[in-house]
Parts: sequence; structure tokens; C-alpha cells
Amino acid sequence: MSQERLKKQLAFTLELDKLKKIERQSYLSDSSRHENDSEHSWHLALMAMLFGEYANEPVDILRVMKMVIIHDTVEIDAGDTYAYDTTGNATKREREEKAADRIFNILPEDQAKEMRALWEEFEAGETPEAKFANALDRVQPLMLNDITDGRAWREHGISAEQVLTRNKHVKDSSEELWNHVQSLVEKNVELGNLKK
Amino acid sequence: MSQERLKKQLAFTLELDKLKKIERQSYLSDSSRHENDSEHSWHLALMAMLFGEYANEPVDILRVMKMVIIHDTVEIDAGDTYAYDTTGNATKREREEKAADRIFNILPEDQAKEMRALWEEFEAGETPEAKFANALDRVQPLMLNDITDGRAWREHGISAEQVLTRNKHVKDSSEELWNHVQSLVEKNVELGNLKK
Repeated sequence: MSQERLKKQLAFTLELDKLKKIERQSYLSDSSRHENDSEHSWHLALMAMLFGEYANEPVDILRVMKMVIIHDTVEIDAGDTYAYDTTGNATKREREEKAADRIFNILPEDQAKEMRALWEEFEAGETPEAKFANALDRVQPLMLNDITDGRAWREHGISAEQVLTRNKHVKDSSEELWNHVQSLVEKNVELGNLKK
Repeated sequence: MSQERLKKQLAFTLELDKLKKIERQSYLSDSSRHENDSEHSWHLALMAMLFGEYANEPVDILRVMKMVIIHDTVEIDAGDTYAYDTTGNATKREREEKAADRIFNILPEDQAKEMRALWEEFEAGETPEAKFANALDRVQPLMLNDITDGRAWREHGISAEQVLTRNKHVKDSSEELWNHVQSLVEKNVELGNLKK
């Protein structure tokens, strides 16, 4: 194995350490601070291991896990765009493609292509694996919002309709998880954590 | 799918959120703060995706990824024991087994068994997958120590011999990664980050 190849792989591994510093809007379950991208990605990988049985179509769990581990890579350059930030979401794709061009290409060419393809697959959300990875990416912050009395929702004045619209694709991937989303939304409307 | 089953899986997912609060001795690459268990586990899963080609024996990457995602679960109750803390390491196994009994059993029985078996496999370090997961678990903090001018090593007065002894099993799993460990140790002795 060439030293040059290993060097590139190590450089990419250290570059991605920066995801530990990218803050999301979600709070940890004890509400002590915001969650970061690497913690979020780890949590999705854990969920991929446990919730595969709820996917409507059979999914390759290895590909789902790989996808969720790298799905936020581009945020090192492009930052985290809050789900309900419409201005930010308008320019998101352009900023993120530029980031993908730079960051994935730190890797040797074959792995750069593999990681880029996984990210593109996740973004497109069309394969069973990408749909399932996206469903987990929706459900996890909902769980954190629910356990923290809707703290991030209340700070941003989010409504039940916004959450249901944002999460509607969960249904395509998993009926059971979609039922759970709906029950969490109903509960949090009743509690006043989400606007009607 | 029963509601009771989903409820247990969700409870376990939220219980493991606590790993985001378990601090390790390693610093992030920018030296701004200590790393936590969930960030560390995510980083190992990323490395499993990229470094599989360096394993001496073929490894099932899915099992390696699953193992590293849950390998620190027991630290929710047992805490992180620093690699070079001999007193802490003497009582580690007992504290960790008690933790495993409590935490994995939050899951439905079949998944509790699967997760416990993955953790036991990792701890035993005998299968090619467990050896490789352990090798990654050794190499990742070394990379962070190297990039932060040996900060955690210097704080604890660690010697090259301690690091090489601690990391010697990397050789059984990967000649290439072992060569990298040795070159990092040599470099950091020269820089005065590790005692001779």
C-alpha cells in the first residue's frame, strides 16, 4: 500500500474531525447544550442498527450506516442549515456542492468517488437506503425535541404543520416511524411545545 | 410490530444519548476541548469505512462498524477509564459488566443479546473484526495526540514505551497501521511530546 494513499486517508480522517465543532439546533437529551454533527451522525448510525426492521422495503444496513456517517461532511464548509430556515435552504445546494468538491477530494480518487456517491445518493433520497437514512435524519431530532420539551421548536416558533411537512417523506420509508412522528407531533401540540 | 418493542428501542436510543456527555482524555484536533464517547465512536466508524484495506485478514465492515458504534456503551455507568490508569483498569471489567447488564437490557431481548454479543466480541478482541475495531480504537487517539502536539500525553507524562505496549496488538490486525503507530511514536519522542 503506498504511503501517499494512507497519507490522504489520514488527512481526510482529521479533516472530518471538524464535524465535532459544527453545531446543530437540536439540544442533547439533558438539554445542557446543542448537539454537533458528529454526535448526530453517530446517533443515526446507532438507529440504523436498531430500526432496520421498520423500513417498508428491505435495506442494506451497511450502506445506510456509511451514508449517515458521512452525510453531514459538507457542513464543514457550508455550515448547518436549520431545517426551517427558508433563506438558508435556497442557497444550500450550491454551497454544499462546492464543499463536497473540496472535502471528498482529499481522499484517494476511488474513495473520493465512493464517498461522493454515498452523499449524492443520500441527498437524492430515492433508493430504499437513502430514503431510510433520511427518515432517521428526520426522526432523531424529533426525539431530542420531544425529550427536551420542544426547546428548539419553541425557540424558533415552529408549528405542527411545519414539522409534518418537513417529515412527510418518513412515510415513504417507514409506516411505523411515520406513526411515531405523528404521535410525537400531536403530543407536543397538546403540551404547547409546537404551535397548532 | 408491537408498540412495546418500538418503545424499548426508542428508550435505548435516548439512553445512549448520554455517551455525548462522557469525556475522554483525547482533545479534538483543534485542541479546543476533550472529545466525548459518541464523537470518538463516530470517528472510528468513519475509519472502518476507509481503512478496511489495511486489515491483515479480510473483515466484515458492517460488523466492525456496529461494534465501534456501541463499544463504549458501558461507560454511561462505568465512566471512561484512561488507557494508562492502572488502578482504574483493575476494576474496569467488573464495573463494565454491571453496566452492560443494565443498559443493553433496555432493548427487546433479541437486540439486547445482539448488542451484548457485539460488545463482548469487541472486548475479547479475538475475531478479525474485533481485532480491527480495537486497532482503530488505538490509532484514533494517537492521531489526535499527534495533531495536538501530544497534549494529553504531556498532561499525563506518558512514555513511548507505554504507548507502544498499549498499542502492540495493532500489529496483529494491521501491519500498515502498526507501521504508522511506530512512526507517530518516533516523531513525538523527537518532539518531546512523549518521554523516552
